[in-house]
Amino acid sequence: MKLATLKNHTRDGRLVVVSRDLAQAVDASAFAPTMQFAIEHWAQAAPQLQALYERLNAGSASGAFDFDATQALSPLPRTHQFVDASAFLNHGNIMEQAYQLTVKKTAGIPILVQRQSDDFWGPCDDYPFPTEADNGDFEGEFAVLVDDIAMGSSADVCTSRIRLLMTLNDVSMRTHLFRELQMGFGFINAKPATVFGPVAVTPDELGDAWSGGRVHLDMRVSRNGQWFGHPNGREMDWSFGELLAHLAYNRNLRAGTILGSGTVSNQDARSVGSACLAEKRALEKIDRGDSSTPFLKFGDRLRFEVLDAAGQSVFGAIDHRFVPSR
Amino acid sequence: MKLATLKNHTRDGRLVVVSRDLAQAVDASAFAPTMQFAIEHWAQAAPQLQALYERLNAGSASGAFDFDATQALSPLPRTHQFVDASAFLNHGNIMEQAYQLTVKKTAGIPILVQRQSDDFWGPCDDYPFPTEADNGDFEGEFAVLVDDIAMGSSADVCTSRIRLLMTLNDVSMRTHLFRELQMGFGFINAKPATVFGPVAVTPDELGDAWSGGRVHLDMRVSRNGQWFGHPNGREMDWSFGELLAHLAYNRNLRAGTILGSGTVSNQDARSVGSACLAEKRALEKIDRGDSSTPFLKFGDRLRFEVLDAAGQSVFGAIDHRFVPSR
Repeated sequence: MKLATLKNHTRDGRLVVVSRDLAQAVDASAFAPTMQFAIEHWAQAAPQLQALYERLNAGSASGAFDFDATQALSPLPRTHQFVDASAFLNHGNIMEQAYQLTVKKTAGIPILVQRQSDDFWGPCDDYPFPTEADNGDFEGEFAVLVDDIAMGSSADVCTSRIRLLMTLNDVSMRTHLFRELQMGFGFINAKPATVFGPVAVTPDELGDAWSGGRVHLDMRVSRNGQWFGHPNGREMDWSFGELLAHLAYNRNLRAGTILGSGTVSNQDARSVGSACLAEKRALEKIDRGDSSTPFLKFGDRLRFEVLDAAGQSVFGAIDHRFVPSR
Repeated sequence: MKLATLKNHTRDGRLVVVSRDLAQAVDASAFAPTMQFAIEHWAQAAPQLQALYERLNAGSASGAFDFDATQALSPLPRTHQFVDASAFLNHGNIMEQAYQLTVKKTAGIPILVQRQSDDFWGPCDDYPFPTEADNGDFEGEFAVLVDDIAMGSSADVCTSRIRLLMTLNDVSMRTHLFRELQMGFGFINAKPATVFGPVAVTPDELGDAWSGGRVHLDMRVSRNGQWFGHPNGREMDWSFGELLAHLAYNRNLRAGTILGSGTVSNQDARSVGSACLAEKRALEKIDRGDSSTPFLKFGDRLRFEVLDAAGQSVFGAIDHRFVPSR
C-alpha cells in the first residue's frame, strides 16, 4: 500500500491512503490519524489501511479525492530518530579520490550519521537557505521506516521490521560539510532539514525490485528540467537490514526510526550520472582537473523520482525550488 | 516549577508536577498529559502547571502523592531532536593533550553532535550494555529543553525560548568513540541511550545560579558510593543561547529539542575532579604516564546530583547500575 501525510496545520499532519497510480487519496484517520500512530500500531492498523487501499484502487472507497503532492508533508513530518548511511562506497571513493580525503574506515563497519528529525520539509515546498556561499547540494536517496527493533537484533530480524520505503533529498551544505567532517563530530550546519518524497510504500509494492534489502530501481534526478542522473539502488554495499543491525548493536530502535541509504551512486557514474552535485564535481575534477558544475543557485529546481518497470511513479516526486531564507 | 514523567506503560509516560523539595508529586494531565504536550503548548500550559506547583508546595494540591524517582522516565522520554555540545573546552583540551588527538576546530565555532532521541533511559533503571570491552563511560552534563526556535534566531532569542533545565548522563562507549571520531561522521555505537535526571526545572528555580545562559552549580558525581568529582557548570565556553543560535543557523528547531552542555569540566579538574572517566584517565596519563581508573564494570553504580546553596537536590539524582545486556 501507499501512504502520505497531508498538511492540516498540525505538526504531524493527517494520514491518507494513496492509490497505486498516485491519482487518488482517502482519509485514513478512522484507523490511524497520523503516520507516527500507524507505525506505532502497525499490527492493528496495517490490515485496515491495506483494505482501504484496495477499495481505493478498485474505485470503491467513499470520500476519495484527487491526490495533490503539493499539499503533502514528508510522510513522517518529524520523528524520534533519523540516521543516514553512506552505504554506496562508490560515492565515498570518488570523493576521497578527488579531494585527497582520508576517511579512516574500518573494514566491515558501515558509515552511519545521526541526523536531525524534528523538522522535515515538504516535498514540493520552497526550500530556504541563507546564502549560495554555503555551496548547497542535494543527495537523492532511498530510506526505510521501521517498527520497534530490540537491541542486538540480527540483520534478518531488522529487515523483517521494515514497514515502509521512501525517497529523500538529503540537502547538504558543502562549505560546512568539509569543515565539520574534519572536526569529526558529524554534521550540524552541513545538513539542514531533510525532504522526503510524498508517498511512503510498503516493500511489497516494489515486487522484485525490493530484493536483498535494497531498492533495485533508478533514482531519477533532474535539475531545472535537465537530466542529472539515474543511478540504481542495487549497488548498496550494505543492505538496510545490515545497517540497522549495526545501529542496534547496543540500543533499541523505536518505531518511527528512519534509516537513509546515502546518496545513490553507481560504478558507471560517468554514464548513468550522479544523484548529487558534489559527486559530479568530483568526477569532473578527477577527469579534467577542475569542476564546472555549480552548486545550488537560488531559484534552482530539483526533481527526484523513481519509476517502476511500467513507467509508473512509485513514491511521487520530490519537486522543489531553492530560495533565499532572508 | 519542577516537572517529571512517570512510567505508565506508554512511550511518553505521564506528566506530573513535583514539589520544590522533590517529596511530593501530583498528576498534571488536566493541563498536559505528557511533557511533549506541555512543551508544544507552553504558553497555555505553563501558567496552569505553575499554579498547580504552588498549590503542591503549599500542601493544598488534591491528589498529591509521594514522588518516587525510581518510577520516573527521563522527563521527556523521547523527543524529535537531541543535540549534545562539547562546550567545556577544558575537557577537550585534556583529551587532546593526553591522546595526541588533533580535532580540527575552527575558532568561534562550537562542537555540537546530533544524537539519538528515540529511546532515552530512566534515571534509576539498570542500564544494559553488551560487553565491558566497549570501555563504558559516563559524562555528567546539564541540558536545556526549548520551545520552537525559528531559523536564524539570535543567541538572545534562543535563550528566551529555553523552557526547562535538566541533568543527564551521556553514556559513552570509548572503544567505539575513538574509532568513530577518527572516521568523522559523529557517534553511533559510541553513544547508546542517554539518561536524564528525573526532574526538569524552569530556569527561575535556580535563582542566581542560572546566569549568562549557564548553570552555576556543581555536578556531583559518585561511583559506587565514592566521590568522583563535582565540577561546576559556570565554565562553559559558550552559553546555551550561543550554542542554540549556531544550531539554528540554517534550520528551525522545533519544540522539544534538547541541547546538552557536554561533560562538565573545570580548569582545576585535579582538585574538583571530573564528570567522566575518560577525563580522569587522561589526567592520570598526563601526570603519571598511564591510566589506573578503570572503565565501567558490570555492577558499577553511578550517581549524578546537583544541590542548591541550601543543600537541596535541584533535579533529583540519576542513580543507576550498569548491567550486562545479554
